[in-house]
Amino acid sequence: MSQKIRIGIVGYGNLGKGAELAVRQNTDMELVAVFSRRRLEKTLSGVPALLVDEAEAYRDKIDVMLLCGGSATDLIEQGPRFSSLFNTVDSFDTHAKIPAYYAAMEQSAKASGKAAAISVGWDPGLFSLNRLLAGAVLPQGTDYTFWGKGVSQGHSDAVRRIPGVKTAKQYTVPKQEAISGVRSGTLPPVNAHEVHVRDCYVVAEPGADLAAIETAIKTMPHYFSDYETHVSFVSEQEFEASHAGTPHGGFVFRTGQTSPDVNHVMEFALKLDSNPEFTASVLVAYARAVFRLAQHGGRGAYTVFDIPFGWLSPKSAAELRQELL
Amino acid sequence: MSQKIRIGIVGYGNLGKGAELAVRQNTDMELVAVFSRRRLEKTLSGVPALLVDEAEAYRDKIDVMLLCGGSATDLIEQGPRFSSLFNTVDSFDTHAKIPAYYAAMEQSAKASGKAAAISVGWDPGLFSLNRLLAGAVLPQGTDYTFWGKGVSQGHSDAVRRIPGVKTAKQYTVPKQEAISGVRSGTLPPVNAHEVHVRDCYVVAEPGADLAAIETAIKTMPHYFSDYETHVSFVSEQEFEASHAGTPHGGFVFRTGQTSPDVNHVMEFALKLDSNPEFTASVLVAYARAVFRLAQHGGRGAYTVFDIPFGWLSPKSAAELRQELL
Repeated sequence: MSQKIRIGIVGYGNLGKGAELAVRQNTDMELVAVFSRRRLEKTLSGVPALLVDEAEAYRDKIDVMLLCGGSATDLIEQGPRFSSLFNTVDSFDTHAKIPAYYAAMEQSAKASGKAAAISVGWDPGLFSLNRLLAGAVLPQGTDYTFWGKGVSQGHSDAVRRIPGVKTAKQYTVPKQEAISGVRSGTLPPVNAHEVHVRDCYVVAEPGADLAAIETAIKTMPHYFSDYETHVSFVSEQEFEASHAGTPHGGFVFRTGQTSPDVNHVMEFALKLDSNPEFTASVLVAYARAVFRLAQHGGRGAYTVFDIPFGWLSPKSAAELRQELL
Repeated sequence: MSQKIRIGIVGYGNLGKGAELAVRQNTDMELVAVFSRRRLEKTLSGVPALLVDEAEAYRDKIDVMLLCGGSATDLIEQGPRFSSLFNTVDSFDTHAKIPAYYAAMEQSAKASGKAAAISVGWDPGLFSLNRLLAGAVLPQGTDYTFWGKGVSQGHSDAVRRIPGVKTAKQYTVPKQEAISGVRSGTLPPVNAHEVHVRDCYVVAEPGADLAAIETAIKTMPHYFSDYETHVSFVSEQEFEASHAGTPHGGFVFRTGQTSPDVNHVMEFALKLDSNPEFTASVLVAYARAVFRLAQHGGRGAYTVFDIPFGWLSPKSAAELRQELL
């Protein structure tokens, strides 16, 4: 076995901690250090915890840096900064800003002679790949995406801001009859609010007006008013016991015709107990690809669309042909 | 729009006819000619029908040749022959012979300066891609593949050879409880015969011994004896009405853990009304990729593992990032 791929992690929230777990599952990789903005006492795996500003000293000690911050504030700044020093992988997911982010990363990574994989994860990421594939194979067809059952951070935050709410979690749940309808080829094109339910679990402050909270949720424009919304009030104890996780997932479908009355359904589905742990596992697989890309002269920004699947696997091309084709 | 990609088809069975339909759905392509071993009267689309031996004259008139023959006899010979003249795409699917076929195609295409995509379709092909992806993302996990509901040509042939059988069709059907078991994460690793049913529809000769036919099917080693097998005798009329098609499909699953008790399920599923029409649509999408590969200097043999998804789509990389990521 050749030398292991040396990985660094920037950001030590849920995604960074998931990346730490994921690197451990890949025997061709080793974690070198975790970098964060504030001084950490220690890491779960025992690798050094350093400040972001100390990263430059690791230029020759880390092959790929996993950028595990959030899109809105962290990555916009950290992406170009780190890709001027390291090969990088990130999960930039602010859809409208992807072209501008790509341009910034292309510029910084081309200038530094590094490879940068952007917007990696499952959506954007694996779902995007399946939309592209299905559209290319079935040019005449209809796309459907369902999200969930999963926690929506934005909607949970919106509920928490209502007076009288102590804490809350919102699950986006696809309607089972809609999924069955797509699978059987009978569902017409739909809007998201027609095929998803919003399920809210709320811990109220003592003495709060529960009816007023429920009304405030169900009538909230943009977030809930267009959706079938369920509100359940639970005790703090039940909330801790049953709603602590971050499950997510979803379904990408395309139904298409290759000739009259000849129909096909393509489906890609994920059911994830932990959104950050799975997303981090995708980042780590793409770290392997970025390492190889860079070794083979790859420079600049890449998306999942640009990277052949063969680079993702620790197996050689000959092994893949023999074992997996 | 730049000049269209000029496509040729070699072989005019079900797959070749499917390719003819598929090319028509892609506005950036045009079909130039169909080549077959025997002189055809005409083609469905009206393009010239020529003999295989006349293909060499089309070296400068066809960008990508779709090889639509069978693996066992046709492709072994036609693959190297055509890749010494054209960029090619084929669906070579004799699993054990893929490494040798790859070597032969690599040699002939490298020598001619052409690009050849081999073993394209859905299995091998799209299923292989999903096995690779899921294994790379979830290194600690279990793979499951289910086939069907679909027609197995080999098993249908085996039934037809039984004395007293006039014609027959065998469907491979995955057990629904097994699929549900994987989706809920409760199914242990399984063998194919535990999770598939073999469903036979048989037209018997007049006066044939039906019980003897049923016993001959159910006790046939390798093909049926290890499986739950159902035999239904139907009239010739019902057979024509209900069993003329070639539906197929299946499911590729991987279940894995990223940390103790944190489980994930990845699923890719196809439900196809026509196996050859869908397979041909995959070949045609990869023809676009091969055309671009060759334009960018790609030479030699490629599999689906080597080709980035971005090449499959008629959209530009910038459009893909903006619209599909």
